[in-house]
Formats: sequence, structure tokens, C-alpha cells
Amino acid sequence: MARRGPETPWEVRASTLARNTNNLIRNIIENLKVKPNPEKKLIPLSLGDPTAFGNLAPPDELLQAVRDSIDANESRTYGVTNGQLEARQAVADYSIHQGRVTADDVILSSGCAHALELAITVLADVGQNILVPRPGYMIYMTLAEGLGIEIKYYDLLPNQKWQVDLESLEKQIDTKTAAIVVINPSNPCGSVYSKQHLLQILDIASRNRVPIIADEIYEYFVFSGHEYTAMSALSKDVPILTCSGLTKRFLVPGWRMGWLIIHDRNNIFEKEVRKGLRNLCGRLLGPTKLIQHALPTILKSIPQHFFDGVNSYIESQATLAYKALERASGLRPIMPQGSMYMMIEIKMSMFPEFKDELQFIEHMYSEESVLCIPGQCFLYPNFMRIVLTVPEDILREACERINVFCKKHAVFKEKAMGIVATSLSVDKEWKVIY
Amino acid sequence: MARRGPETPWEVRASTLARNTNNLIRNIIENLKVKPNPEKKLIPLSLGDPTAFGNLAPPDELLQAVRDSIDANESRTYGVTNGQLEARQAVADYSIHQGRVTADDVILSSGCAHALELAITVLADVGQNILVPRPGYMIYMTLAEGLGIEIKYYDLLPNQKWQVDLESLEKQIDTKTAAIVVINPSNPCGSVYSKQHLLQILDIASRNRVPIIADEIYEYFVFSGHEYTAMSALSKDVPILTCSGLTKRFLVPGWRMGWLIIHDRNNIFEKEVRKGLRNLCGRLLGPTKLIQHALPTILKSIPQHFFDGVNSYIESQATLAYKALERASGLRPIMPQGSMYMMIEIKMSMFPEFKDELQFIEHMYSEESVLCIPGQCFLYPNFMRIVLTVPEDILREACERINVFCKKHAVFKEKAMGIVATSLSVDKEWKVIY
Repeated sequence: MARRGPETPWEVRASTLARNTNNLIRNIIENLKVKPNPEKKLIPLSLGDPTAFGNLAPPDELLQAVRDSIDANESRTYGVTNGQLEARQAVADYSIHQGRVTADDVILSSGCAHALELAITVLADVGQNILVPRPGYMIYMTLAEGLGIEIKYYDLLPNQKWQVDLESLEKQIDTKTAAIVVINPSNPCGSVYSKQHLLQILDIASRNRVPIIADEIYEYFVFSGHEYTAMSALSKDVPILTCSGLTKRFLVPGWRMGWLIIHDRNNIFEKEVRKGLRNLCGRLLGPTKLIQHALPTILKSIPQHFFDGVNSYIESQATLAYKALERASGLRPIMPQGSMYMMIEIKMSMFPEFKDELQFIEHMYSEESVLCIPGQCFLYPNFMRIVLTVPEDILREACERINVFCKKHAVFKEKAMGIVATSLSVDKEWKVIY
Repeated sequence: MARRGPETPWEVRASTLARNTNNLIRNIIENLKVKPNPEKKLIPLSLGDPTAFGNLAPPDELLQAVRDSIDANESRTYGVTNGQLEARQAVADYSIHQGRVTADDVILSSGCAHALELAITVLADVGQNILVPRPGYMIYMTLAEGLGIEIKYYDLLPNQKWQVDLESLEKQIDTKTAAIVVINPSNPCGSVYSKQHLLQILDIASRNRVPIIADEIYEYFVFSGHEYTAMSALSKDVPILTCSGLTKRFLVPGWRMGWLIIHDRNNIFEKEVRKGLRNLCGRLLGPTKLIQHALPTILKSIPQHFFDGVNSYIESQATLAYKALERASGLRPIMPQGSMYMMIEIKMSMFPEFKDELQFIEHMYSEESVLCIPGQCFLYPNFMRIVLTVPEDILREACERINVFCKKHAVFKEKAMGIVATSLSVDKEWKVIY
């Protein structure tokens, strides 16, 4: 049976998967209706890329390891689809903070996004759902929705250091819930959860028999006085797929080297999930071996003071931005405990000329040439996210311009003030309408 | 509604996608029931990797380009999800043999497998089908079946230089056919199609309004006297997605740098497919920029004599193997015109002790330590595939051992001879039963 005769016009559709794969940040940011002010240099506080400005560079040991890799024939041959044994062993050794990990538990991936894709697609079927935090980085939506996997949201509490609203989390779980995604340290919140809080989340997962996808790409990005604990190190029974990579900590996001680690103390994944992951690895045949081959050296040779230096830089930037934006009319920055972001509430009632925070951000972009990510991109209106890794003088300048913009546009009315006071104390005000 | 109470045992299934993603070659080869002969050194003629033995190495210009890339900060930052403009422009310039190509038509991918994944998943929906050649490399099956996309097969004709059985191709097209995959030069056949034959295929695609996925990862791998023509260079109306990459020609398969090129003279893909591809790129965020950044230099700086040298090496290896195996009892090698493989018919009637070609190959492996890929891996029994890029002395030794094995096991009976004579003339004998 011929499909269509030569007399019919050509028509080729894109698949459901392709049509329903969306990137929320990109859709919003690429469709901004304004341009930056040509008289002021553009400051993008929007890029979640610590290397974007060149002020943070990876250590020499890392670059040298890849230089050496170029000269090795083994870095050019086809590899094992889940990653070379030596590289997987190196990741296992590096990840002891996550609990017992062997090379067999590690799968190398083409960046952390690919690790998340593997985790989501191995656990969730068409018609099932995964729970993700709101606000939260929206790659999960991009990866899941096209495949017919539903995303459901559980709330984080801005006034409780962005901890999980446990009641909201448990309420979202239903018979079709395939996994809970936990981002810690958080993008976009900058929160770092205590052991006790992680145990509360694990308890819910355990009672409801739902595995966890732990997005820990910001592992170790913690400011002084706080402590990062790997979810998997605390789990007694909940099976966990942890996703991480070189991306942020080693300052090479463009290299696309990530990994997934299987934590499964009670062999719950033994029956199908491990084999399923191996099957899925056969699709893309593994990440570039040029970097895989260098991984053992990279993960062992870099001195701790390098990482400490980056962390303390980000922390001082966080303090700088917090202090500067605390003074801005109509803004409420929330001090992060780690990662490289800060969320800032925009008290929209004080900016009645803008219909939502996106319009606030567009106007700030066109007047002050400062670009922030609107909360809508994280399904969380009335907030914006800034990135803390930009150079200090640029961050300082950006904060000044944000202050100027807020001062110019904020309206101090009794009524407005009243609403601000309320919103500080009532969490429910932040419920999402998007 | 809680999913399952704490009293129920844990049970986590793998998704349909994960369970139904299979790699045929891997499943068969990893489950061989035998070991090589410990007294003879293993010769794997099975690995479709020209760099596996180290005798073929990439040119210095390529290695230097990546060394330079390491030192550039732009090679470490996050990239554009469809690839950096400069790199896409370089691929467009390199691909002029495919017809008019602009940077906008190029998508960079994590190896050619990823390009094929993009091509299949943008065109085909659950319940639709794509047509692939038999024998053919089976990555399409791995990529499609888990997503509920059916694979249908059209036959190649071993006695007509593995040309497409056009009648078989047209008969397979139905209302659910989303694309036809054409592999040229071919893995595993080593065939290179004439312009005239490609036009015949295009005519069928055009009359039935079915787009083509052109797997041309072996572009330029052509022996003297033959000519490779890009399918897209001939198409007047059929929209084509061409998949290729650095993998084979530049001898860096492990680097995972591939690309997809959109050929769409009549803007048929404009409506949905281009946007669909862009959406799909948002899933993995593009291939490693370490190599993207080096692409312009790699694609421009390597002298033609390097490629000519590799091609003439493979051709002389093909001649060596053909001559040696032509003499082997019960084998019929089919001389390739390009790529890096040769298919060899095993006249199973002359080896009655083996129930199929897989058993033949297992016994040859355990007696002579030579491993070939059984035709089953390409859904084509009674054949085996060998790789021609191994070092000359090793190929010579392998052919000798294959001869010894065949001599030992072939049974010359009148009846057997009769069948051989028939099978040479009747194509239908090769219909697949697997």
C-alpha cells in the first residue's frame, strides 16, 4: 500500500516526542520582546555557566590530563557503552561520600543532562509521572514530557531556606509516580539540605516505595557553616540514581562529561533497572573517550585548595549580592547556602506598572542591560534568579543598576507596603499560578 | 493517594523504552558460548573500529587542533545546543558534495549514532515504521524499537553488488512509513551505489512521499574505479536527513563527534521538522565543545593524501582478503567497493555439522581464535562480516586460519555442490528466516 501518491503534496510532520520537547528557559528568554540598552554594557546574570566570563578557569592538572589523553590511542577507539572501566572506577573512588560505590554502579554520560535522561527514561513509562521541586531547574520537563511522562510538582518553602514542603511532596505521590527528583544543592535556590531534612524526604520515599533521582551536580558547592550530604549516603532502603559530573565543580560544562551512580543496597534495581540502564547506554555508545581517558587523573590530581578557592569566591559573591540587593526597593533576596545561584523575590505589588516579573525583567534589561532569569522559567513567578560566578566588579555594577531600576520603578503606597508585610509571613502567597 | 504502603515489598520496574532497547550485535556476541583457542592469539575481525589495532592513526593536524582547543576558554563553556556556529559552518563547507548546505542546516551530535537518533526520533512516531536495509547495521533497531517505532526491512541483492531490491523496497512502504534509511557506502556490505541506482531509490521515495535518512558515515570510503555520490546531491524533491561525523574518516570513533545535515530544497521540513530537531537538541545540550572548537581546523587542514592513503590501504586489504577467502572451501566472499567491510557467504550445506552460521563462527572462534560477526547480527543468516582495517599481517594470518578451518569442516558431497551452484544464481535463496 503506497503511502501517498505522487499527486499529493509533500507533508512531513515532526514526531510527538519532537513536538512536545520544550525548553522552558530557552522559550522564554529567546522570546524576550526587548533589547538591552545600547549605552550600557550587557551584564547577563542569566547564564548558569561558571566559565562564561573567563574569571573562573579549570586547574592546570585537568587541562594537562586531557593533553596527555590526546596522545593515547585508547582515547580514540570506540569505548564500552557505559564507560571505560578505569574511568568508572575513578568516579566510584571520587564518590565515596555517596556511600559504597563500585565501578559497576557507575555509568558515564554525555554531561549531567544525559545522566538525568538515563535516570528518567529507565524509571518512568508513558503515562507515569515524576515529581520535581518547584522552583526547580526545568531540564526534567524537557526530558520527560515529550515521552509522555508527566511532571508533577512539589513545593519548596522560600521562608524555610527552600526546604521541601513535605506535606506537598507526599500529597503529590500517586500510583503512577515513578520517581522523586531531589536537587541538592539546589538550582535555582542555592539551598543545601541538612541530614535531618534529607532523612525526612527519604522517609516519604520509603513509605511510598518510590525511588529517588538525586540531582547532585552541585555536590560540594557549599558555603561555610553548611554541609552537603549525599542523599544516597543516608538511604537505608530507597534505591537512588545520583546524577553528577565534571560540569560545574571542574569548570568544564562544555566538555559534556557526566555520570550516573546506582545506589541500591537492597537489590531492588537488580531485577530490571540495571539491565534497562545498560540497554539505554547502547543508544549513544557512551561519552567522548578523550575525556573519559583523562578522568582518573582529573579526579585524583586536583588539590583541595582549588575547590576551596572557588567555593569561597562564590560565597563572598553571594554576600556581596545579598547585601546590595537587600537595600533595593521592592526586592527580597534569599541568602543561599551553596551552589552558585540566588533567588530574589520581586514584590510585584510595589511595581504596579509591570503585569508580572517577566515584564519587570524585560524593562530592567532594556533600561539597565542587566538580564536575570524570571521565576516563570522555574514555574515560580514573582522571583528572579541571578548567577553568582560573574566577576566581582561586574556583579557589583549589576547590583547597582538593579538598585537604580528598582528605585525608579517602585511605588511606595500604604497598600503596597501592607501586601509586602503579609507576603513575608505567609508561605501560601508563593503558590504558583503559572 | 499513596503509591504503595510501607508494608508492601519494594518493586521498581524498568520502563518499556529501557526494556525494549536492544543491541543485536552485542546480545549475540556477548552470549557466545565458547572461548578462543588459548594456543592461538585472538584475532577479532569483528570490531568495526579502524583504530582498534593502532595501525591506523589520525593525522597530526587533527591532534594539534584539539591540543589548541584545550587552551581556549570557549572550548569549556556551555555551547549552543545544536552546535557552535563556527563548527556548523565548517561542517557545511566540508559537506558541499552533499549539495547546498548552510550552517543552519547542520546539527552537531554526540557521534553519528546520536545524529541517527535525532533523525529517527524527529520523523517517526509511536506506531509508525522506518524502512532499513537487510543486511544492514542494526543501530536503527536499537534506537527505534524501544520508542514503539517499528522497523521494516527491504532486501539488498548480494549478487547485484548489494543493490537495493527496488521492488522489495516499494512493497514495504505503507501509510505508516515515516522514513527510509539508506546506508551508502554500506556497513556491512561494503557496497557503493551508482548515481543511477540512487536515483531509482529517490524516485520511489518521491513517488510515495517518504523522506530519507541517509547514513553516510562512510562517505568518501570508496575504492578505485568507484564513486561515492551523496544522496542529497541528487534529490530534486525528497527531503533528506544525512548523518555523518568524524568517526571513521578521521579515525577518532571514541571522540563521539557526529552531525546531521538537513537537505530540504522545497521547505517540506520547514513546517515542523526543523523546529522538532531544535527541540530535541535541548535534551542533551550538544556534543563536547572541546572537539567542536577544533572542527574548523580539523575539517580544513588535513591533506588529501592522508585520506587517499587510508582508502588505498583498505582497498589492498580487501583484495588480499578476497583472494585468500575465494580459495576457502565453502565460502564466497563478495568484493566490496568501499567502506571497510566484506561480507562472506558461508555455504551452510557444505558444513552440515553446524546448524547455522553462528555455530560455524563459534567453532571457528574456539579452534582458530578468529572472530567474525555472524550474519544474524544484520538479520542476514548464512553470511559473516569481516573488518578490513586490521594490520596486513594479522589479516593474512586470519585468512589462513579461516582457510584451515573451512578445509577441516567442509563436506564435499554431490548434493552439497548442487546447492552451492543453485544459490549462486537464485537470489531468493537469501531470504531471511531469522
